[in-house]
Amino acid sequence: MFKGKARAYTNIALIKYWGKKNEALILPMNNSLSLTLDAFYTETEVIFSDSYIADEFYLDDTLQDEKATKKVSQFLDLFRKEAGISLKASVISQNFVPTAAGLASSASGLAALAGACNTALKLGLDDLSLSRFARRGSGSACRSIFGGFVEWEKGHDDLSSYAKPVPSDSFEDDLAMVFILINDQKKEVSSRNGMRRTVETSSFYQGWLDSVEGDLYQLKQAIKTKDFQLLGETMERNGLKMHGTTLAAQPPFTYWSPDSLKAMDAVRQLRKQGIPCYFTMDAGPNVKVLVENSHLSEVQETFTKLFSKEQVITAHAGPGIAIIE
Amino acid sequence: MFKGKARAYTNIALIKYWGKKNEALILPMNNSLSLTLDAFYTETEVIFSDSYIADEFYLDDTLQDEKATKKVSQFLDLFRKEAGISLKASVISQNFVPTAAGLASSASGLAALAGACNTALKLGLDDLSLSRFARRGSGSACRSIFGGFVEWEKGHDDLSSYAKPVPSDSFEDDLAMVFILINDQKKEVSSRNGMRRTVETSSFYQGWLDSVEGDLYQLKQAIKTKDFQLLGETMERNGLKMHGTTLAAQPPFTYWSPDSLKAMDAVRQLRKQGIPCYFTMDAGPNVKVLVENSHLSEVQETFTKLFSKEQVITAHAGPGIAIIE
Repeated sequence: MFKGKARAYTNIALIKYWGKKNEALILPMNNSLSLTLDAFYTETEVIFSDSYIADEFYLDDTLQDEKATKKVSQFLDLFRKEAGISLKASVISQNFVPTAAGLASSASGLAALAGACNTALKLGLDDLSLSRFARRGSGSACRSIFGGFVEWEKGHDDLSSYAKPVPSDSFEDDLAMVFILINDQKKEVSSRNGMRRTVETSSFYQGWLDSVEGDLYQLKQAIKTKDFQLLGETMERNGLKMHGTTLAAQPPFTYWSPDSLKAMDAVRQLRKQGIPCYFTMDAGPNVKVLVENSHLSEVQETFTKLFSKEQVITAHAGPGIAIIE
Repeated sequence: MFKGKARAYTNIALIKYWGKKNEALILPMNNSLSLTLDAFYTETEVIFSDSYIADEFYLDDTLQDEKATKKVSQFLDLFRKEAGISLKASVISQNFVPTAAGLASSASGLAALAGACNTALKLGLDDLSLSRFARRGSGSACRSIFGGFVEWEKGHDDLSSYAKPVPSDSFEDDLAMVFILINDQKKEVSSRNGMRRTVETSSFYQGWLDSVEGDLYQLKQAIKTKDFQLLGETMERNGLKMHGTTLAAQPPFTYWSPDSLKAMDAVRQLRKQGIPCYFTMDAGPNVKVLVENSHLSEVQETFTKLFSKEQVITAHAGPGIAIIE
């Protein structure tokens, strides 16, 4: 019996991952850059044993269905192959999210599982290799191996596509990210399907690719010089651009709901009042507001008034993956 | 003394005019196609006389300021040059809009003024020439010379850029356009400034240009075959794409407000309920819903419930320019 347990934190991209060059290997079309956050994480234990006749997957104490289990099985296969074993496994995963936020947990989830497998099977993978493995489970999971600012190098094949920390002289410790959780009745286009449809049909996708490198360069400059305004403006611009690409897809779609726009307008309003803060959004209606700790309370106050206390969650920079026990 | 009076109706583009190739001559980057509507129009009288020492411009019984008057003067200069006169003029213009809707009236306004000048100065310009002249005042005004479906041929110089009617076998008589008037506190980016910023800085602008011809072709096919679904889908797609370009401008901007998204969501919801209707938006938060007369009442009912009765205005296809008296 082989056993391992790990914790990994979620991350939010400041420069977005948007589009795959290779769907099977999950190689992205462009580099992305994220901030790992402390407020949401996943703890996952894996047990490989000959007592199991099939893989099983518990998430938040609930046995998952065939579809979810199959995805986990395929991910476990990568590690079984690496270790040269064929034992079935039980995966017990717990998401730590303040409320039923509906926040994507695939990044922290797959990163934690990768760490658990590495420990269980004593593979001795270093963090870069672990990032590579995590990527195969869910693209953005490769960034959750590391804390703070993290860049995912797109690479050109399985071996060259992985994340690594971005030197920052602890700039991330000055920052907070306020999540505005927005309920939406709409049936979402998944991140996976949204990026696929955009890559295949959007007349704006080339414009995205052409400009993302410039955004990435600016953002790294902002980290290097601890320039919060440049950091925020670049993040906001890149996020809006990602969402713009979906409007030229066929058929067009959007992740925005009326409350998303309300939150974005409030951020612009705060800036007009002299409070520097900037937003980003992912493949859903939630809005994430980046702010320096020195202005955090104003941002929290504005959004708890505009929405409700339960819809506003504050996160700070989080650490990389941790092995438990 | 030379006197003329004309009425012109507003038009809404189904394929958008978005970007100028030549700012001075108002030559557009792409062809556009509109529907002239009966609900909003402008009546304008012009009097050229040696009793005036300067041009004066009354809009809705109010004498306009220097800036607005200067724009009108420059437009009058085109006609004075054509007629070989230098008389100053008084322009008395009345906008007929159901409420203080804040709807752009520059298209109907400049078209009506062009018609009034043509009559006053007995220039005998045919409609295509009149369209060319109207274009110099406000790009989209060139389309308001004609009724029903109208295409603005971008052309390549002053002489070749004008609008003309699109043969439609009265398809437009089956259609209605429901305006959802949305109040917005935001200070708007003008249409003129928005398109300029987009042309100059948006990494999506080339993608817009590359795809607009295909949209135009589809829309003309839809008119030819009286295919309402194709007409609506193409219009909606083209409008969303126009709005997508602004998200990649530097700095990015949007004309959408939370209520705009609410209205767009309602249109999608109506379609799910089997009611074919489609939206488009221009350089502001208002949403315009295209529907066949056979489903008009359902659309009106939905939006008067969701917003207020005063915010919902129904228009049908309108005629071309008319000389009055």
